[in-house]
Amino acid sequence: MITIASKDNTRIKNAKKLYKKKYRKDSYLIEGLHLYEEAKQANAQFRQIFVTEKYAAISSPIAVTVVSDDVMRELSDADTPQGIVAEVLYKAPLSLPETLDKLLILENVQDPGNVGTMIRTADAAGFSGVVLTAGSADSYSPKVLRTMQGSHFHLPIFQENDAKAFYARLKTQHMTIIATTLSDRSVDYRTISKPDKFALVMGNEGAGITDETARQADILAHINMPGAAESLNVAVAAGIMIFSLTD
Amino acid sequence: MITIASKDNTRIKNAKKLYKKKYRKDSYLIEGLHLYEEAKQANAQFRQIFVTEKYAAISSPIAVTVVSDDVMRELSDADTPQGIVAEVLYKAPLSLPETLDKLLILENVQDPGNVGTMIRTADAAGFSGVVLTAGSADSYSPKVLRTMQGSHFHLPIFQENDAKAFYARLKTQHMTIIATTLSDRSVDYRTISKPDKFALVMGNEGAGITDETARQADILAHINMPGAAESLNVAVAAGIMIFSLTD
Repeated sequence: MITIASKDNTRIKNAKKLYKKKYRKDSYLIEGLHLYEEAKQANAQFRQIFVTEKYAAISSPIAVTVVSDDVMRELSDADTPQGIVAEVLYKAPLSLPETLDKLLILENVQDPGNVGTMIRTADAAGFSGVVLTAGSADSYSPKVLRTMQGSHFHLPIFQENDAKAFYARLKTQHMTIIATTLSDRSVDYRTISKPDKFALVMGNEGAGITDETARQADILAHINMPGAAESLNVAVAAGIMIFSLTD
Repeated sequence: MITIASKDNTRIKNAKKLYKKKYRKDSYLIEGLHLYEEAKQANAQFRQIFVTEKYAAISSPIAVTVVSDDVMRELSDADTPQGIVAEVLYKAPLSLPETLDKLLILENVQDPGNVGTMIRTADAAGFSGVVLTAGSADSYSPKVLRTMQGSHFHLPIFQENDAKAFYARLKTQHMTIIATTLSDRSVDYRTISKPDKFALVMGNEGAGITDETARQADILAHINMPGAAESLNVAVAAGIMIFSLTD
């Protein structure tokens, strides 16, 4: 039944490389039943599917490769291997929809867990897309994929390196640019009347938004904190902002 | 200048053990300048402070021990060692304040990052305490300490194993118990009028709140999600709930 029992198998070694960005040419790895089901439902194209014996009979668009528990541990990036790891082909990058309404922009957000969690939150709130600047964590890294829980199958995520040109484009579309900051020279987020079309910018964990973004923003907003902690985790702050702007 | 250059040094080996719960008898380790400063400001009692040469002259209540970069890497639990690791004595556990107003209850929340992030959020919002049930991650684990960023120096965090007795106590104090659920048989969180005194319950990442909590709650609330993601990260959901209940 088991086809691959050796960790030194070339297919296993090559697959594992896909956890590193430089090896992700046209595909990436997903792990766990939930992500696998999301990928199937999104008609993602699979190149190979590795499973342990418990999933040997799983419904799948291509034949599965059954591996030993040892090999699965080797293939897994999780603390607890999930018994299924699949290689999925990148889709042609989704472009920004013609008509924009609600966008989340992540500016140099470095922690993959934060990036994944914020994409998941924007997806839950029905945003139409997420934009990552070049300084943000790669959206196909294993930790981002784990934390965004399949949201990349639901909404377009794309990279934008020319911030100035991008903001100019948003302005021609009459998008209100709302940037979140710790600065006092900003409004309490609860006073913002929900715009129909907006782009919400969340900045770097330590440095916050860039000066360029602060200049371009139509609204600078902060979350008032009556307690003792100096700041909020950026993904929590994003959640508060996103749902305060959601109907 | 360097006092300890060997990773096999007994003090280093013993200190490292404190990352494991079973070895944390009366102390725990904190890492990084931010947590060290928070601890000092809270008049925490230090047992030992390990630093690399760059912090050799740091202001400190007890003499520091300078270690090599190699030893610091060994001592560190972070991806990037921060150059300072200190052993801090537990304080006598803070008891629940006599007059309760705003409490966060974490019921079997397992991920240390989620536990730490929610404590930090409650601290930012000015809550008066956090209660952890026995099934939740230990609040002195390195990942919880890292994500709560010193909030345990600001507000009491205590463990409560007898949920029923605890809810009874909250009710005698006229605390409104608000539990967050994914169930439809609950109200949209935005319709809750802010109670003066309440306990907000967040449940396990997969299973949600227990049946006992659902029975005891005065208000069962959910966050409406117009988008495609099936759920929110529990720390994000907590942030949305906490700040919607905060003035």
